[in-house]
Amino acid sequence: MGKGAAEVICVGTELLLGDILNGNARYLAQQLAALGIPHFYQTVVGDNPERIQRAVAIACERSRLLLFTGGLGPTPDDLTTATLADFFGAPLIEWPSIVENIRQKYASIGLIPPESSFKQALQPQGAELLPNPGGTAPGMIWQARPGLVVMTFPGVPREMQRMWRETSVPWLKQRGWSSGTIASRTLKFHGIGESTLAEQVAQAQPNYFELENPTVAPYAGDGEVRLRVTAQAQTEAQAELLIDPVAQALAAIGGDHYFGSDDQTLAMAVGERLLARGETLAVAESCTGGGLGQRLTAVPGSSAYFWGGVISYDNSVKQNLLGVRAADLETQGAVSAIVAEQMARGVRAALKTSWGLGITGIAGPGGGSEAKPVGLVYIGIAGPDGSVRAVECRFGQREREVVRDRAALEALNVLRLALG
Amino acid sequence: MGKGAAEVICVGTELLLGDILNGNARYLAQQLAALGIPHFYQTVVGDNPERIQRAVAIACERSRLLLFTGGLGPTPDDLTTATLADFFGAPLIEWPSIVENIRQKYASIGLIPPESSFKQALQPQGAELLPNPGGTAPGMIWQARPGLVVMTFPGVPREMQRMWRETSVPWLKQRGWSSGTIASRTLKFHGIGESTLAEQVAQAQPNYFELENPTVAPYAGDGEVRLRVTAQAQTEAQAELLIDPVAQALAAIGGDHYFGSDDQTLAMAVGERLLARGETLAVAESCTGGGLGQRLTAVPGSSAYFWGGVISYDNSVKQNLLGVRAADLETQGAVSAIVAEQMARGVRAALKTSWGLGITGIAGPGGGSEAKPVGLVYIGIAGPDGSVRAVECRFGQREREVVRDRAALEALNVLRLALG
Repeated sequence: MGKGAAEVICVGTELLLGDILNGNARYLAQQLAALGIPHFYQTVVGDNPERIQRAVAIACERSRLLLFTGGLGPTPDDLTTATLADFFGAPLIEWPSIVENIRQKYASIGLIPPESSFKQALQPQGAELLPNPGGTAPGMIWQARPGLVVMTFPGVPREMQRMWRETSVPWLKQRGWSSGTIASRTLKFHGIGESTLAEQVAQAQPNYFELENPTVAPYAGDGEVRLRVTAQAQTEAQAELLIDPVAQALAAIGGDHYFGSDDQTLAMAVGERLLARGETLAVAESCTGGGLGQRLTAVPGSSAYFWGGVISYDNSVKQNLLGVRAADLETQGAVSAIVAEQMARGVRAALKTSWGLGITGIAGPGGGSEAKPVGLVYIGIAGPDGSVRAVECRFGQREREVVRDRAALEALNVLRLALG
Repeated sequence: MGKGAAEVICVGTELLLGDILNGNARYLAQQLAALGIPHFYQTVVGDNPERIQRAVAIACERSRLLLFTGGLGPTPDDLTTATLADFFGAPLIEWPSIVENIRQKYASIGLIPPESSFKQALQPQGAELLPNPGGTAPGMIWQARPGLVVMTFPGVPREMQRMWRETSVPWLKQRGWSSGTIASRTLKFHGIGESTLAEQVAQAQPNYFELENPTVAPYAGDGEVRLRVTAQAQTEAQAELLIDPVAQALAAIGGDHYFGSDDQTLAMAVGERLLARGETLAVAESCTGGGLGQRLTAVPGSSAYFWGGVISYDNSVKQNLLGVRAADLETQGAVSAIVAEQMARGVRAALKTSWGLGITGIAGPGGGSEAKPVGLVYIGIAGPDGSVRAVECRFGQREREVVRDRAALEALNVLRLALG
């Protein structure tokens, strides 16, 4: 059984200035989830002893395992160890083995350690060492009060992660902190809004959003809607067994909108279908300028079905390489259904593939009009039977990169649905 | 003068599970620094009303400006607004303008909004709206108590950032929150290592890394090396005056490696030069699969000089559309200097542009050999005078996307240097 919740406390003014992303908090969060240790709060505080103490006082009240990162080095703004010793009223003790270790590490590069470096050999009385095989600043594991464990790690991600893996995880498991594991699976949907999907789920499975194990939570971002299914169990296999039926039901509710889970992308979903059918693809891109090909070729092994394409940014390229008719460019404009169709047909013919996709649109910020506003995109699709059609999309007055991303995703989705 | 410290409170179980990096906290931290608003704590809490309330109670005691991200959407686990209203004892009021806005946004894509989406139209009595031009969930600006301002933002980074820029920053400036400013300029360099550049700076300007206002700090990431110059002053103009001479000296030290500052990209540097010379560009991409065209067309107005290209992922495309010789593909292989040259020459001829770039390489993870390892890339460049040459790059056994990104950047840099 678990012993209580963990709190991650990251110490460092560089985090409060936004100089770096807090990757340490994310790493420890993932690790705690995998161990099944509950984790309800994260705190970031600067290199200031008074504010560190206030953060510790709050964390002691609500958490039983405090994981500190940062502030263990030799410089005057490395304050974590001394501040914790002060807060819990323990004297600092020098560890001769660390002193020796610091001397050796400097000697190996022909230097004498500066006096300040020995600060790293001090730990509060009663604390165990948390060895740092990759650096000079060790951490500690300290039962600072009954029912309260404090661990400290340096801020350097590689050192922190190795110390966590090699010492902290075995320590926590041996002492019964890990009450099993938390596994989660993220189901991905395209072409449906977050709230519409949530309502369809609520209609088909009225209790799904109130489930406690596994839990189901929707979230949205960058043109995709996701449902995350999270289960707690003794082992990962047991957690997956809890997830499986719920994930299957959710995928079925999503129907055609569901395209994969976790790291799977629309480009992968398209690739799997093309591979299974033994078919090939070429693309003709105007407003996306290569972004569709870039997504397709991000998938290792995509050369088996993706042959390439034409970036037809200028109208002359649409005419000369894709055979788009000058008259249609003139009367309908480059951003039109008929040009998208001709691009798809033209690139399929030029590259001799089963399928052709064409994208033409207005990415903005300039170039829009009342009849053809920014965000208007046509996607042409030409199939193995020679048929061709176009889909009109209106992504609204969004930023240039958003329109371009959406257009590439939509083209992939049009093909995915056509591939069945 | 300033009015007190800000605290960033990110609401979202996905952060506590480590599913995503907390980029919102970093963005707001940078922005607060730029405004000179002190910022001493960040808190992350899950989608749980009781724990959100506990976090708010703590934040009220130590901070005067609470910035919430996340939990504003339409689903049952979006709890931020209702929890804040409850905590401060204010009823929720429906905003007809938001109801109308939600209806319109759905209508513009031909849908009727689901009932749950109207939850986003509720805000506590007394709060001002914080409009969200990029989405359906607005935030609020709320003087929840005397001397305490609460702002809420959705978790979607693009929406949050735009709301912050367009509404929050002017609001805070008007009300005297910004007590001066911190401005910074990031100088960007390509083709030189972080420590080599730092040494060149130290030789030319021995005291630069000890300056206090402005400060100079090097950092590296994603194939670019950067020097950030940061100055503190009463106004932005005064800060820029402090930055200017130092930035100019650093750019001069960097020489050809310096290509721009802040949001400027290599693609923009190339575009400016092409425009100035009245010349045009076409690209032929193999391993990057469209990523070079994607970068070039990310620049608004790029259609003035970028005409398009060919994604020649399959060898048949290299032969048929670019005129690469079958014999060279056979004897030298698709990843070779001669094929890169023929791709550059071929795309320049096919699209009738001044310049042609060709990229062929091994992105991995498969496909490498001892003679041609993963990370080997050839960049071909064909110029207006008909000359053509190739550059060999070895990016090492890196991840597929890293190799592809580096290859596209390197091609842009080769062209930038050729354009003088």
